[in-house]
Amino acid sequence: MDHVDLNADMGESFGPWKMGDDEALLDVITSANIACGFHAGDADVMAATMARAVERGVGIGAHPGFPDLQGFGRRKMDIPGGTLANMVRYQVAAAQGMARVAGGRVRHLKLHGAMANMASQDAEMARRAYDAALELDPDLILMVLAGTKQEEAARGLGCLWAGEIFADRAYNDDATLVDRSQPGAVIHEPDVAAERMVRMVEAGAILTESGARIGAAVDTICLHGDGTTALAIARAVRDALKDAGVTLRTFEGRR
Amino acid sequence: MDHVDLNADMGESFGPWKMGDDEALLDVITSANIACGFHAGDADVMAATMARAVERGVGIGAHPGFPDLQGFGRRKMDIPGGTLANMVRYQVAAAQGMARVAGGRVRHLKLHGAMANMASQDAEMARRAYDAALELDPDLILMVLAGTKQEEAARGLGCLWAGEIFADRAYNDDATLVDRSQPGAVIHEPDVAAERMVRMVEAGAILTESGARIGAAVDTICLHGDGTTALAIARAVRDALKDAGVTLRTFEGRR
Amino acid sequence: MDHVDLNADMGESFGPWKMGDDEALLDVITSANIACGFHAGDADVMAATMARAVERGVGIGAHPGFPDLQGFGRRKMDIPGGTLANMVRYQVAAAQGMARVAGGRVRHLKLHGAMANMASQDAEMARRAYDAALELDPDLILMVLAGTKQEEAARGLGCLWAGEIFADRAYNDDATLVDRSQPGAVIHEPDVAAERMVRMVEAGAILTESGARIGAAVDTICLHGDGTTALAIARAVRDALKDAGVTLRTFEGRR
Amino acid sequence: MDHVDLNADMGESFGPWKMGDDEALLDVITSANIACGFHAGDADVMAATMARAVERGVGIGAHPGFPDLQGFGRRKMDIPGGTLANMVRYQVAAAQGMARVAGGRVRHLKLHGAMANMASQDAEMARRAYDAALELDPDLILMVLAGTKQEEAARGLGCLWAGEIFADRAYNDDATLVDRSQPGAVIHEPDVAAERMVRMVEAGAILTESGARIGAAVDTICLHGDGTTALAIARAVRDALKDAGVTLRTFEGRR
Repeated sequence: MDHVDLNADMGESFGPWKMGDDEALLDVITSANIACGFHAGDADVMAATMARAVERGVGIGAHPGFPDLQGFGRRKMDIPGGTLANMVRYQVAAAQGMARVAGGRVRHLKLHGAMANMASQDAEMARRAYDAALELDPDLILMVLAGTKQEEAARGLGCLWAGEIFADRAYNDDATLVDRSQPGAVIHEPDVAAERMVRMVEAGAILTESGARIGAAVDTICLHGDGTTALAIARAVRDALKDAGVTLRTFEGRR
Repeated sequence: MDHVDLNADMGESFGPWKMGDDEALLDVITSANIACGFHAGDADVMAATMARAVERGVGIGAHPGFPDLQGFGRRKMDIPGGTLANMVRYQVAAAQGMARVAGGRVRHLKLHGAMANMASQDAEMARRAYDAALELDPDLILMVLAGTKQEEAARGLGCLWAGEIFADRAYNDDATLVDRSQPGAVIHEPDVAAERMVRMVEAGAILTESGARIGAAVDTICLHGDGTTALAIARAVRDALKDAGVTLRTFEGRR
Repeated sequence: MDHVDLNADMGESFGPWKMGDDEALLDVITSANIACGFHAGDADVMAATMARAVERGVGIGAHPGFPDLQGFGRRKMDIPGGTLANMVRYQVAAAQGMARVAGGRVRHLKLHGAMANMASQDAEMARRAYDAALELDPDLILMVLAGTKQEEAARGLGCLWAGEIFADRAYNDDATLVDRSQPGAVIHEPDVAAERMVRMVEAGAILTESGARIGAAVDTICLHGDGTTALAIARAVRDALKDAGVTLRTFEGRR
Repeated sequence: MDHVDLNADMGESFGPWKMGDDEALLDVITSANIACGFHAGDADVMAATMARAVERGVGIGAHPGFPDLQGFGRRKMDIPGGTLANMVRYQVAAAQGMARVAGGRVRHLKLHGAMANMASQDAEMARRAYDAALELDPDLILMVLAGTKQEEAARGLGCLWAGEIFADRAYNDDATLVDRSQPGAVIHEPDVAAERMVRMVEAGAILTESGARIGAAVDTICLHGDGTTALAIARAVRDALKDAGVTLRTFEGRR
């Protein structure tokens, strides 16, 4: 593959509370997953973040989550399917309008936190959430965790999607992430992360801890911006990919 | 005038809590002001209410309010102009998307509670809120309290608007409402309310307590649905207007 | 047994939204489980409900739940143990102070909704929640679902507790409730519920669908107040118990 | 005066969002005003902050605010008196219980943000809020803005109170703060702030911009901890007072 997208979560400040270094990350990424006010973000933060994304030519994504501000949408909630669909609709619709006013548009969808984790293990839940968003815009590109039930659900819907891998996480041989409790699960060295990403993008595959190679849709790489290390990793990944001749640009989606 | 619209607030239930008799009111009204999740309503309630409005051919309006669930958006809040604009954008955008999925569209905007009261006395605040909504859809029809700063703001924007009068409130000679603390301020008898509405619609004017007649844009009549009396008034107004040969249909807006 | 307590959830209104017929139920019950503002109730509702409970001599209980207003605390949430403990402390502490100002005191604790359901199947979770409350008041009486992990946890803590059975639910032979999807799971006839309760209280045992008898701490009977049937059941149970010579009074707790 | 208290707002983080450098400030102050979950803080943050305050021997205060997380309690809200009282009761009661579990107790009350600003101009509102808190604990010490309606209300209640001045704000000749829009309204130089505080504490008076001296209850000095400058001012004030022989200790309250 000669191109890839770099994405990061954005707009996760709320009211007086700041989170992440969105300004710095916007210089690195090509797609921004913007919180929609349920787990983080508020209307002011959304507006400001979208305006900046438009200025920088960064693709805008809606990043809906569970209605759990204190838990930052990271706590599993047992939400009935119909309610989940309406929660996704509401958040994505709000993001679409806010993006339009900012002079842009919502190109993609990425589920957040526990909603994403649950959907990566439950294709029916993923389908409910994705379908709700596609009703608002059938051309929306679903950003899915490569190799999970999220991908299975997106393929089943026949819509546009883009596969995502993590810059800073090690993989098991079944394409799941190595549990955070295991040594080496999280990658802290910018050089290591950068080198791994170049190899995975060039291979079009997930490369696991054991050395196995799993063919995967490597369309976008998830970066983080909270903390010095995260930003250093983000920049190292970007620079290494450029040096390797990989074009960084937002995805067009595959079916 | 040979036609008028009947409007009511709808979709004000929240989670397990029910409010109002939306089913019954939908048989009476021609425009529904649907809460957008900040002062009342949640994504499930919005979806269900919009679906029913579409079924009955009732016009859908976004009804944004302050982010104050306990206070039902009725407590004044001192919100900076930019934040107010983003709050309105967020709520209206969410409503637009939800309406689209329900097979309809948001035709009009009506501000709720304290946000509406403050805007009826502050043209600049009204303008900020209205302008934010119009950025999302320049064809949106603003439902304004006839004769207030809301109307002044709408006229200033050069957009479509519709003037609203109350079925159950007495008016002063300056077109403001008689204070609720005064005797006769609130009308409780269905017949009295109905007869008044027929006269005002036919006159195209607000008729005050003192007998004065103030030319006004009588495009829509605000009805309520909470409680037996309110519903009886709503039905009496509808029936009396029909008997008087007035067509009940949603407004097209004026400039 | 010659006495028993009747309990019901109370103070579940929120802001402008009313729930349940607290006034009517207060004439039936001897203990009130009062919502603490996370899943239902607000400070005004708590104050008013506690004041009424004090007037009627009804025992006050804190009824904490998950921070999920839209879901009424009925949706499972995956809350870390330390956070769960603080959530319970916060809610119970607020209730204690509000009760003191109302001239009463919090005598008992009953977990709400999904928090209660999860704790009835997870003794460690129950222990965390109970222990947090007991730190505030070691004399607090824990109202537990008889025969569940809640009871196990309470016994393990060596504190005061009271066993609870349901007036309107059928039981399996392992003391769990017959699933709502099964015929006969929910009892709708006041006479049937009342007769069952008299037999269970007299037996000091849960009587199951198959006719089995499971010795149980029948200290309090859970009643509901939402809807005409629920209130009719509540009154029928009360009257039948009185007729059978059972004294209705709040529990003192057992160890 | 040979002693004074140093206070700061604390525990204003929420969920994943951090605010202020509480650790650093706890080494400077003698009283902590701890947010109670309405405008900032959550049960976890409260528990952790109170535990640290107890460890350091810093006096604990309840710091209730309006239920407005996005606005950080800084936006005026028009709350009816009875509801205001219940909001204060609920928050203070929660803080009392949490403090007890942390091994401490709530010694004082300080109103937050817009609630404080409104109360400093409205003695009746201040009285409602204070009275609600005193019902929970008549020995609570009210921290009031010296010379405002807050002080008037506290004096009227005959309870314990402590007067507060600001380290970083200039004063008008009527003891009000110079408006932030005026040059010199906010003091940014640690040395200037420190020297001013020493003079005011020694004088037992507010020294205004014009050089006037207004006798005042200078019991505690309000410090901030957000940003490097604020912390530098806090430390400079502390050091200068110590150097001047002023003992730093929490207040006992006056009547």
